[in-house]
This record gives sequence, C-alpha cells and structure tokens, in this order.
Amino acid sequence: MNKTFEELTPWLDKIYALNCALVLFEWDDATEAPEESSELTSKAVEILSSEYYKAIINDDVKKLLEKLSEEKDLDVKERAIVKDLKKQHESMEPIPAEEYQAYQGLIARASSVWTKAKNASDYSLFAPTLEKIIEYQKKFIDYRLKAGKKEMKPYDLLLNDFEEGFTTKELDTFFDTLKKEIVPLMQMVTDKKDKIDKTYNHRHFPVEKQRQFNRMLAEHVGFDFKRGVIKESAHPFTTNLHNKDVRITTHYFEDNLESAIFSTVHESGHALYEFQISDDLTGTPVGTGTSMGMHESQSRLFENNFGRSREFWIPLFQNLKDTYPETLADIDLDTFILGINKSTPSLIRTEADELTYSLHIMVRYEVEKMIFENKVTIDELPEVWNSKYEEYLGVTPENDAEGILQDIHWAGGSFGYFPSYALGNAIAAQIYAHLKNVMPLDEYLTSGNFAPINAYLKEHVHQYGKTKTTNEILMDMMGESFNPQYYIDYLKDKYTALYKDL
Amino acid sequence: MNKTFEELTPWLDKIYALNCALVLFEWDDATEAPEESSELTSKAVEILSSEYYKAIINDDVKKLLEKLSEEKDLDVKERAIVKDLKKQHESMEPIPAEEYQAYQGLIARASSVWTKAKNASDYSLFAPTLEKIIEYQKKFIDYRLKAGKKEMKPYDLLLNDFEEGFTTKELDTFFDTLKKEIVPLMQMVTDKKDKIDKTYNHRHFPVEKQRQFNRMLAEHVGFDFKRGVIKESAHPFTTNLHNKDVRITTHYFEDNLESAIFSTVHESGHALYEFQISDDLTGTPVGTGTSMGMHESQSRLFENNFGRSREFWIPLFQNLKDTYPETLADIDLDTFILGINKSTPSLIRTEADELTYSLHIMVRYEVEKMIFENKVTIDELPEVWNSKYEEYLGVTPENDAEGILQDIHWAGGSFGYFPSYALGNAIAAQIYAHLKNVMPLDEYLTSGNFAPINAYLKEHVHQYGKTKTTNEILMDMMGESFNPQYYIDYLKDKYTALYKDL
Repeated sequence: MNKTFEELTPWLDKIYALNCALVLFEWDDATEAPEESSELTSKAVEILSSEYYKAIINDDVKKLLEKLSEEKDLDVKERAIVKDLKKQHESMEPIPAEEYQAYQGLIARASSVWTKAKNASDYSLFAPTLEKIIEYQKKFIDYRLKAGKKEMKPYDLLLNDFEEGFTTKELDTFFDTLKKEIVPLMQMVTDKKDKIDKTYNHRHFPVEKQRQFNRMLAEHVGFDFKRGVIKESAHPFTTNLHNKDVRITTHYFEDNLESAIFSTVHESGHALYEFQISDDLTGTPVGTGTSMGMHESQSRLFENNFGRSREFWIPLFQNLKDTYPETLADIDLDTFILGINKSTPSLIRTEADELTYSLHIMVRYEVEKMIFENKVTIDELPEVWNSKYEEYLGVTPENDAEGILQDIHWAGGSFGYFPSYALGNAIAAQIYAHLKNVMPLDEYLTSGNFAPINAYLKEHVHQYGKTKTTNEILMDMMGESFNPQYYIDYLKDKYTALYKDL
Repeated sequence: MNKTFEELTPWLDKIYALNCALVLFEWDDATEAPEESSELTSKAVEILSSEYYKAIINDDVKKLLEKLSEEKDLDVKERAIVKDLKKQHESMEPIPAEEYQAYQGLIARASSVWTKAKNASDYSLFAPTLEKIIEYQKKFIDYRLKAGKKEMKPYDLLLNDFEEGFTTKELDTFFDTLKKEIVPLMQMVTDKKDKIDKTYNHRHFPVEKQRQFNRMLAEHVGFDFKRGVIKESAHPFTTNLHNKDVRITTHYFEDNLESAIFSTVHESGHALYEFQISDDLTGTPVGTGTSMGMHESQSRLFENNFGRSREFWIPLFQNLKDTYPETLADIDLDTFILGINKSTPSLIRTEADELTYSLHIMVRYEVEKMIFENKVTIDELPEVWNSKYEEYLGVTPENDAEGILQDIHWAGGSFGYFPSYALGNAIAAQIYAHLKNVMPLDEYLTSGNFAPINAYLKEHVHQYGKTKTTNEILMDMMGESFNPQYYIDYLKDKYTALYKDL
C-alpha cells in the first residue's frame, strides 16, 4: 500500500464505523424503535452524524488528500477513494461554517414544516421555508463555482453531484425525447385502460400469506438471507452496512396484492447491487453503488423489465395462485400480466406505473431548472407544477397536497436528485436490451434461473462500486454510453404488444 | 450549570452517542443481523468501542475531572457523573497502555478458545488462556493498588468494581449465613422433590401461543411497549439506549412452558428499572441502574418474589389455561404453583431454581477468592470446583463442560462479577419484605395491579440511577442497609409453607 494512503486508513476506518452506526440507526428507526424513543435517539444520531462529517472534513484529511493527488502509484481503489473524498471536500469547503450550520438547522426543522403544510394541503405554510432553502442552495452553488473557478450553470452543479457527467445538456435531450415519444404513447394507452379489469388486485390478501410469498420471491431473484434481512416499514427502502449485511423492507396492504410484490422485487434489485460489490471495496467510501441513477437502474431492471414481464411470472404464477387459492381462483396469467401493466396517468409519483413514471420526473426536472435559472418565483410554483401535470399527464392536482407538496425531497434540500429516478428507468432499459443480446434472458426468466443473470451483473456492473462512473460501466459493458433510445424503444414495443388486442 | 462542568458536556454527549450505537449493535447482533455479517460488523464495533474508550480516557477529560473534584457548587447529578468518570479513570490509568492492549487482544481470542474447550469438555484446552488472563488481572490489580496507595485485598478491588461497598468481609458473612441456613433447607426440600409432578411443563407449547402470552405477561407487570421492544434471542437479556428505549429478549422452547415465562418476567424487572430512571439522568453515565447487584435485585424481585408467588398467578392462571386449553386442561393452580417452585440441586447455574441458585454463586465466589489469594493453581481448579459442588449441592460434575467450563465469564476477564447475582437475590428479598410492610402487596399482586408497586420502586429505587449506591438506596428506603437475613427468612418461610403438606 502507498505510504501516504496508509496514513488515511485510520480515517477511513472511522468513516466506515460511523457510517455503519448511522445505517443501523436509520434501519432501526424505520423497523423497530419504540414510538416514544425518537427524541432522545435523534440526539445520539445527530452527534454521530457530526462525528462522521468531522471524520471526512478536517485539516488532516485535507492535507493527506492534497498529497495523495500527487501520488503516482495509487491503485484503482485508492485513486477512487481519494477522488470521492476530494469531491466531498470541494463541495463543502467553500461554504462558510456558520452558514452551513444555519442551513443544517433550517433543514432539520423543514421536514416537520413540510409535513404540517402537506397535511393541511396549504403550500403557503411551506413556501417561506422553501424560499430560504433555495436561497441557501443558490448561495452555496455560487461559493462552490467561484472556489472551483468553474464555468457551469448553477443547476448543472447539483445534477453533477448526484450523477457525474449528467448535466442539463444531457437531460434536456433525454426529457425532450421522452416528451416527444412517451406523451403520445401514453395517450394511446390511456384510451384503452378501461378495457383492463384489475379489480382482483384489491381483494383480501392476508399479511401472513403475503410475507410468505414475498420472502420466496426475494429468494427467487437472488436475495441471500445469510447476508440479508427483509422486514417491514412504512416506506420500503434498502440499506446496507457492507456487502455481507444488506437489508430491505417492504410494506403489506391487505387490499393490494401488487404493492408489496413490486416493492420487494424493486428493493431486491437494489440489494443485489450491494451484495455484489467486491469484497475488496466494501467498507470503503467507494464500496457502494456508483450513483443513485445506476442504483435505481438495478431496482427498476428487476421491478419492471424483469418483474412485469410474462417470462418472469411463468415459473411463479402457480405459486402465487396457490398462496391465495380461493381469492385468485378465477385469475389467469394473461389477466395478471395485463393487470400489472395497466397504465393510468395519475397525480402521485410514488404510485405511478412504469409508463408514466418518468413524466412525473420530467415535471420536477423542468420546475427545478426554472428555479435555478430564476425563471419562477416561489409563489408561482404551484401553478407551474399544475400546468405541467395537465400538459404532460393530462391530470390536474386539485390541491397542494397532491401537487407541489407531494414529495419531501425539497424539504431536505435535495435539488437535482429527482432526475436520477428517470435516468434509472432509462439505464435499466439499456442494460435490459444488452442482456437480451448477450444471454438467453427470456429462457433464464422463464425457468427462474437468476444465477447467470446476477453473475453477469456482478461482473459488469455491481462489483466495481464507485471505481467506475455510470457511463464508464455502460461503455465497458456494451461499448456505448448512456442512450435513452433503448428506453423509448422498450416502452413502445412493450405497450404496443400488450395493448394490441384490446 | 457549573462552568467547568459545561466544558465536560461535549464529552458526555459523545460518550452517550457512542454508547447508544454500541447498545444498538449488540441488540442487532443478538436479534437480527444476518449470520454472515459478523466479521465485517465486528470491525465497525471495535472501532466505535475504541472511540468510546477514548472519549472517557483522555487528557482533556482527566484535567476537567481534576478541576471538577475541587468544585463546590456541583449538583447531585454532576457530582455523581464526576465520581463515576473518575472511578473509570482511576481504574484504567495505572495500567500501561501496551499491557492493556495485549490483554484486550487476549480477551478477544479467549471466548473462542473457551467455546472450543467447552465443546470438547476439555479444561486443558482453556487452562493456558485462563492462566494468562488471571496473571494480567493480578498485575493490573497490583498497579491500581499501588497507584491508589490502597491497603486492600486484591479480590476486594474487583468486588468493589462491580458493587461499591461490598468486599470479602461483607460477602464472607453473607455466604457463611447461606451455607449455614440454605444448605440444610435445601436438603429437606430435595428429599421431597419427587413428590412434585412437573411433567406438564414439558408438553407441547407452540411458539406463536407463547409469544402472545408472554407479551401480555410483560404488559401485565408494567412493560411499556411505547417505550420498549420485546424480541427473541438465544440468551435472554435486557438493554437500553435511554429511558424511552428499553429492549428485552426472551427465548421460546416448545417443550418448556416455564422457561420463556420466567425469562420474560425477569427481563421485565430489569426493564422497569431502566424505564423508571429519571428523565434528568437518562443519557448520562449515571442514568442507569446503580450496580449489577441492584439491577439483578429488580429482575429477581419480579421473577421470583412476585413471579413464583400464588398471588401473582391468581389473575393470570385462567389466561394461561385459555392459551393452551387442551394442553393444560388437567392442571390446577396448586399443581402449577408447586411446579414452578420445585427445587432440584443441579450442576448448571443458569438452570438453577430459586432456592439453589445462590449456592452455585457461592462455589464461584469461593473459587475466585482462592485464585486471588493464590491458594489454588490453575491445574487444581476443576477438582476444587467439583468438590465444592459435591459439598454444597450434593452433585458432582461428570466432566469439565458441566463443571469448571460452564460459564463464559472468566474468558471475558470478569472476576468479582458472580457475587452480584447472589446479592441480587438477597436484595430482592429485602425489598420484598419492605414492600409487604409499606403496602398491601399481596392485594396488588392478586388483582394484577402493578401501578402502585412500580410507582413505589420508581420513587425509592429506580429514579436515582447511579446517584445513590445500593446501600444508600436501601438505607433511605427502609432505614437499613444490606441485610441477608431477609433472604434467609424468605426462603425458609416460603419453602416450609410450600412443602409442609408433601
């Protein structure tokens, strides 16, 4: 090991240990902590978060990173770690400590302000807080651009934080294509939606039966219970301490069969990425998915490209029927496949189907872009939001709760994050097309044989963690970087075929 | 707040946060972590443990504690915190860092050596490790006695670490009384044991039913599920992050009805102590039970003095029968009460009944005393152990696994810890006698009314955390410090009454 890098090791150990603790607290809070524990436990979590932050941002680490940037004999992993930590330093350092602290305080209070506003469906309660958050964000971007002497649009800096190499240039092209192709496709599909009867999905499905089926389902796609845990929480999520401890949650609704199923498959996709990170990288800052978009591509690949295909359900459907023998007695595979692919434009992103999901993101992307290009005032946001929903999805929110207030992200200061969801969908389709070229994918799905699929994903995507960017992974795997055309083609082909006889 | 004490606050915060994290990791490891996670997670736990240690033992804290020892205007809580941290400093400081580290390394390996030796039932595999641990212990005691200029027997220093104010002087008196009174009582009881038929306890009791009954049982004695969690683990235990997050585990055996019941009541007793620590103290180093002996007194009070009484079962027995209507159809309350109080001298401490339990501890106490008075060699230990079992319990281990190797404590370097178990039993009996004097205890138990009992324990015992010692609590509550006669009287009265008609 490089001598200077060795000096970084105790810091990396501390970062690793504190991260494990923070992950465990988050998991525990969502799955098990008693309801009155949160105030006192939050205090511990805040202290540990600040220790975590101090383990990254401090003068000793800064000096080491400067020295390490000059070193020639770092290996791939070491270089990636230095790059990752430097990126964090560069984004934090230009911001005056008092301002950052004030901002953190604002963010800490913002989610409860947002909750109140959402519950009252009254945007005016949240607007002053949102305005302050945006002001800070703009100031911070300004500090960072000046410090880095970068010529960059403000919003591009945020986008690049979440997805390296993706700026408004790439995303404008991406969303323009979506607008041109998906909006008309969606209209065709929407016209036929009433021909699909999906009432079976809302019959009664006891939680205990769902638990049993979903556990089997996770195992079916490759979730390893020796290294993983599956539990329940209000909002499904995936987290991990390292590659030998990966945890997912799902949520059971007794009047909705699909909900837990696709949550489970979605989170299992995220989990597989973390399970298959190389042993050499796990426990380091680069031992996790390379970006939010790439992570989302893995969950979407499993949830949608695999999970909503006929092939996927061929080996599973009888098992599903056997789990609810009376309830699903009259439902055949064709009905089920149409049901899980029924598309209906709706107001709420988290309930959106495969076809319309990215349009929800497009609305948010355009709104965020306007915010950071100073083309919209805080007061105008609800109207802009609503008119875009009307234009792209053909539906109009009746109130703020189902409109501008529906997502918590902005209350947490997460601007530039939404596009990753849509990128994930598009990357998933690109990888799916590639898999079809390099292996008998449909055969594997039909026989429930996930081993070769997962082995391929490990070899070409998962194992690298953050040592490769999204585009490097795509380029090395298939000789082509990000290309949204695969996504368009996938949706067109799929929905045309599915709906052709309706 | 005192100005100097204020400077200690960031350290206390850090100690609190790291302790919460370590508690959560321990809980997670025992209840949920996937089986292959331990190696990588242990690394994180080791790093956090060392951070925890460094947050207490460091020069800044040392200087602050020195200054604070001179301060006159500290309040009760502040004084207790300073005293507690100073105690930790005084016990650690005299030990050279390299030796301490070597010892820690030895301890880290010792438990797996012990496990192997126990599985092979071969003491010779563990003896060399045990010898080294004892050598270190003796050296460390020597350093500490010299540094503190203390005239004290070596073993007394260890005893005092676990239970302030209790040394061989008090414990010799205690165990001598036990020997004189309990050993003959036990012989009387043992002669009659075959007259009690307890086969019903080993019928089939499905786990799901047990879960339901034990949850109700915990609630019955006052366990608050809004601030607590009950789960399952191999060995039942209680832990807590603070007084609003207290967690217990139990363990269900389908062929043993009692096992989980008394684990649940035992751990609920521990839990109540932690629930009822004052809000002002929780989250500080003195916001927990004052000593291991006092903690054990609360669990034993609930498990034995309350939990094995007829009064306790009057409001519960029908519920128990209803839980297993067919299995327990032929069992009446009298049979059940005799069954849960059947006493049989055995070889294994953790399976011992209320009457013989403290005799198991007496063996360990006498053996430990001999070790630290250099009156026994490592090689002689199994023989000494066996002959004491024969003498006090009338049973002789057939092999090392059920003899000298049965407990893990010594592999962890815990010498002087065992007596707290017996002290707990005796303190429980003393508090039980007091409760009978100050409230209509039997009436409360018979009507399942734990609120006034728990309120009294909160007011006189629990709320103080470590701001009072065991003897201060007893003295303030009942005008008398520790007195083992209550325990003797309790056992005599109880077993005489129970067995008189057999």
